[in-house]
Amino acid sequence: MRDNRITELFNIEHPIVAGGMVWVSGWRLAAAVTNAGGLGLIGAGSMHPDTLREHIARCREAVAGKTFGVNVPLMYPEIETIMNIIAEEHVPVVFTSAGSPKKWTGWLHDRGIKVAHVVSSSLFAAKCEAAGVDAVVAEGFEAGGHNGREETTTMCLVPAVRRATSLPLIAAGGIATGEAWLAAEALGAEGVQVGTRFALTVESSASDEFKRHCLNLGEGDTKLLLKKLSPTRLAPGAFRDAVEAAEAAGASADELRELLGRGRAKQGIFEGNLDEGELEIGQAAALLRGTEPVSAATVVADLVATRRDALNRLTICNH
Amino acid sequence: MRDNRITELFNIEHPIVAGGMVWVSGWRLAAAVTNAGGLGLIGAGSMHPDTLREHIARCREAVAGKTFGVNVPLMYPEIETIMNIIAEEHVPVVFTSAGSPKKWTGWLHDRGIKVAHVVSSSLFAAKCEAAGVDAVVAEGFEAGGHNGREETTTMCLVPAVRRATSLPLIAAGGIATGEAWLAAEALGAEGVQVGTRFALTVESSASDEFKRHCLNLGEGDTKLLLKKLSPTRLAPGAFRDAVEAAEAAGASADELRELLGRGRAKQGIFEGNLDEGELEIGQAAALLRGTEPVSAATVVADLVATRRDALNRLTICNH
Repeated sequence: MRDNRITELFNIEHPIVAGGMVWVSGWRLAAAVTNAGGLGLIGAGSMHPDTLREHIARCREAVAGKTFGVNVPLMYPEIETIMNIIAEEHVPVVFTSAGSPKKWTGWLHDRGIKVAHVVSSSLFAAKCEAAGVDAVVAEGFEAGGHNGREETTTMCLVPAVRRATSLPLIAAGGIATGEAWLAAEALGAEGVQVGTRFALTVESSASDEFKRHCLNLGEGDTKLLLKKLSPTRLAPGAFRDAVEAAEAAGASADELRELLGRGRAKQGIFEGNLDEGELEIGQAAALLRGTEPVSAATVVADLVATRRDALNRLTICNH
Repeated sequence: MRDNRITELFNIEHPIVAGGMVWVSGWRLAAAVTNAGGLGLIGAGSMHPDTLREHIARCREAVAGKTFGVNVPLMYPEIETIMNIIAEEHVPVVFTSAGSPKKWTGWLHDRGIKVAHVVSSSLFAAKCEAAGVDAVVAEGFEAGGHNGREETTTMCLVPAVRRATSLPLIAAGGIATGEAWLAAEALGAEGVQVGTRFALTVESSASDEFKRHCLNLGEGDTKLLLKKLSPTRLAPGAFRDAVEAAEAAGASADELRELLGRGRAKQGIFEGNLDEGELEIGQAAALLRGTEPVSAATVVADLVATRRDALNRLTICNH
């Protein structure tokens, strides 16, 4: 495919971003995606500052000058430390999420760092444009993990964000194949952020137990829960059963917070405790059912090939 | 565009189906869509048998030999009467939903009637194929009104159904523009069923109050509620506030059934009682915000034009 604003902005071959996911996106996954021609992101949300510094150093060494980035949830408790490390280590790209793009965009730009921000509404996309971010990620309801309150799906969100801003636009949520990538382009996106499919590759830091569990999910198996706290899409498991039961009985935000406790995403994703853990994954997992984890490079190549096939199919059908 | 299996199956110009919606899809809307080159459906779900017979007769007269159809929710209490009327009146196409496709498909085929069935999962799509239906409609979470329990979005559902069956495939849910139509084609659909956008045309039987209300919704304004009964996507209003409050407090299915009572969809959609009524509409309404109701023919022409523009954009970007 031709270059577009996303490939030019990040100086990458394919406009494919690997979401920077907690307990999933260490330097191995980020470097593998970058080396395959996409944009790999390290997920700072689950790292202590020293761990992040080490992952950045290893990723930089592994990609030998190619572009990688770090995803930073802006409600991170040690946000200033994290941002200083990112600047000191000359990370070229930061994806921010879960907060206002106003606060850090100028600071990052002053240090030569490109900034994309993740939104779940066109209202926030417009705020991104006002804040001067370089690109916006529109993430729909079908995405795994933390999710917008609006519940707007990728099919409805991407065109709304396309109308609301002139920014380079990356679609996220439900995109695990080249067909979905092409669909996102039809809706107005110039690139895609792929989470679930990269979370289940061999280079992902997630445990084998988590990967196997997610590669056996059917349609309807993930659910968006914890809406009174922060809506989160979860795979089945004993902890999720407890959340569902509590919510059906009208549990308050405080009761849910107590049930959630701390460290559940680590337990579930990283340690593979399918009973006690929080198992964050997107609806697209059902499209991967019955497959084995493959390399991130295989995923990138498959996305490129299946997108091309889908485009050829559309073109042949119409001309 | 070229003919495909959907245009050939129904002998229509454009593979655009207008959903057969309660209190919305009378003969005027169905005939207007059919006369514009799509497939108009009468919504039997809100009609007494005699009313349905009258709408069929008027529609047949208005379309002068072109194809129209009737949507029949299979849990309809007078289903045998309805099906007999459809056969006696020589309706060429029936879309069934909310039930098993096994029961009526053979009966309808014996009478020369083509059958499509609406599903929210690939499991039910496979059952449709086994039942011998002529086409399947895959309807995602973003759709208005009654909705699947799986909450699978159009972006994730259409490719899953595409893999599960070889049937001609119509995508539904979140499709109100040619860009979304093209996205559905990228995902493997051959046609689209459009509900929300046709519900808000001048030929729709919905009240002006309902149309105006829905044409002022923003993203996140519709919500999928009543999940303990039958998940239903609703626009804001006093009745919905009451449902949300009851659900947040853990209301049982029986309590919700009592709160719902009877006739709320008629009140809301047909009579325009925005306080007491059930206001069924899809997420795509937010993409129509601030517009006025236009004719169904204008919608069909706009879908065709915006799809063609989106296809040209994709083709120019890639060749």
